[in-house]
Amino acid sequence: MMAPNADPDVAKGAPANRAEFLEVYQKLKSQLLEDTEAFTYTDDSRRWVARMLDYNVPGGKLNRGLSVVDSLKHLKNGVELSEEEKFLASVLGWCIEWLQAYFLVLDDIMDSSITRRGQPCWYRVPQVGFIAINDGILLRNHIFRMLRWYFRSKAYYLELNDLFNEVEFQTSAGQMLGLITTPAGEVDLSKYVISTYIKIVQCKTAYYSVYLPVACALLMMGKNLENYKPTQDILDDYLDCYGDPHFIGKIGTDIEDSKCSWLIVQALKRANSDRRQCLLDNYGKADPTCVSKVKTIYNELALQSVFSEYEKEVYDKLVAEIENQEDHALQTVLKAFLGKIHKRQK
Amino acid sequence: MMAPNADPDVAKGAPANRAEFLEVYQKLKSQLLEDTEAFTYTDDSRRWVARMLDYNVPGGKLNRGLSVVDSLKHLKNGVELSEEEKFLASVLGWCIEWLQAYFLVLDDIMDSSITRRGQPCWYRVPQVGFIAINDGILLRNHIFRMLRWYFRSKAYYLELNDLFNEVEFQTSAGQMLGLITTPAGEVDLSKYVISTYIKIVQCKTAYYSVYLPVACALLMMGKNLENYKPTQDILDDYLDCYGDPHFIGKIGTDIEDSKCSWLIVQALKRANSDRRQCLLDNYGKADPTCVSKVKTIYNELALQSVFSEYEKEVYDKLVAEIENQEDHALQTVLKAFLGKIHKRQK
Repeated sequence: MMAPNADPDVAKGAPANRAEFLEVYQKLKSQLLEDTEAFTYTDDSRRWVARMLDYNVPGGKLNRGLSVVDSLKHLKNGVELSEEEKFLASVLGWCIEWLQAYFLVLDDIMDSSITRRGQPCWYRVPQVGFIAINDGILLRNHIFRMLRWYFRSKAYYLELNDLFNEVEFQTSAGQMLGLITTPAGEVDLSKYVISTYIKIVQCKTAYYSVYLPVACALLMMGKNLENYKPTQDILDDYLDCYGDPHFIGKIGTDIEDSKCSWLIVQALKRANSDRRQCLLDNYGKADPTCVSKVKTIYNELALQSVFSEYEKEVYDKLVAEIENQEDHALQTVLKAFLGKIHKRQK
Repeated sequence: MMAPNADPDVAKGAPANRAEFLEVYQKLKSQLLEDTEAFTYTDDSRRWVARMLDYNVPGGKLNRGLSVVDSLKHLKNGVELSEEEKFLASVLGWCIEWLQAYFLVLDDIMDSSITRRGQPCWYRVPQVGFIAINDGILLRNHIFRMLRWYFRSKAYYLELNDLFNEVEFQTSAGQMLGLITTPAGEVDLSKYVISTYIKIVQCKTAYYSVYLPVACALLMMGKNLENYKPTQDILDDYLDCYGDPHFIGKIGTDIEDSKCSWLIVQALKRANSDRRQCLLDNYGKADPTCVSKVKTIYNELALQSVFSEYEKEVYDKLVAEIENQEDHALQTVLKAFLGKIHKRQK
């Protein structure tokens, strides 16, 4: 029987309401465009920022943002969120989406990408170009304005700032590792060792994709993040396995782009000297014949089953670690995460 | 007769010790390279960051950074700074220099600049290219790590974070105004009106060049920045006049680059319809004949003397405003600033 204040959505396991979440975006956007405290817009600049926001912020799946609301619901263990809690969790969720937008706008320039979320990358839009660099910076700055407006009076305001700063630092540091490991035109496969790979993945995606939403919810509950180091470790393990979006079946252009992926790392580890030479000769080249040769080696090395084995191992280990958590509500949050990510891989 | 603890350097009006200031850079750089709390370096990435820092951070005149130490000395009104105070003021000074480095690395990409401080812009260094975008982000992130290490236990830590965040926001917002006012290939002179110009200048350079060092010193003295709003206004006035580095004599490539400068704004304001048409036809073009025509108009409109008049007016007004300040120590700081900036313009 449900407790008197039980949220039927949580009991049903239903996720946060997406439409409500998008309403919060509209409110935040208006506030930012009317924010004259630090800066006075001209009509042109207000229009520019409005367009830039709509183009870059709300266009994804919004999973990271919605996760904050979901995590908070789980942590409250069936007790319904107040309107204020829902709203504040949504603001934090949008801060994460803003962070994501900031990363994507800049990453797309650095990777010379063409499209993103089914439309031209922002920097490729006519008249935008390198102005996109500054737009990325503005997106980042918006986060701290929003945090200040809504959380400055909260006891955890400092921790919240530190959290976002740390996440950003980890992500940029991971990005740097990836960028200098794959300098354009040069392929030095000796650099593609497991530890570098793990660091890249961990930094780049782990912290803002998985840890950050949970950490936000924990802070709203008044928890001290220092006590949740095991949670960080568990989430690190998630990402050993699940963090890299470019897994088998989603290779994309990693081979041509000479990316330091899980696949090439495993291949190098397992290849005999002939195959290793072939990889060295063919990796990081645009020529489809070369790409094909690399994929052939992946298949010859049966990397698909290597991965399935590894995935099962990690999954079992994760479940065990989660069940070791004393905090029952946190267990629920982490299992929900595992469920979402694991399902996505299938 | 000097007070017992009087700092002879202050009494003599001598500036902060540059060599000591540079020692603090070395210390901060080491700390950042050994910072494994959030991120584990590989040898390559540590080398990359070391090189990137040395290339971009300590190469300027360091005036903004040294100003923090100087301002603190003035505010302490002759009482010598302790070693700890000198060190902490230097750390804040370096945070400002790091901020400057961050802005310059990114601005140079956005402006397609060639050289900076007598060497190729960082993004033009072989193998750097767009990785420079991420390097800029790393520079920014370093600031918040340094603030956290040294100031987290201070009563003013929150205000310090807010201050740097606000300064960054203002600078990026000003940069945006400048960028969208001068879209490549288009010149719409109707946008170049005084108010836009003032906003651009104010935002872009005022806050981190002039206000930020003073504000840092005020915070170290335990002051509430809210009480120093008049100081901000005075500094805004400085920048109406002195903030734009591209004044007469330092036109650089503003004409070719279609920049919204004080000169073009004044010229448009004062030109008759023939001259206005000539400006419209010739501004923002690379052709030296066109550039020459614009400069001829500047001379015909006697903008040099317009500027001298304006400068004198602003200077007198500033001196009057400063002398209205009740806080004597703050008066000294502001006069010192005025002296430095005014002298630089001669």
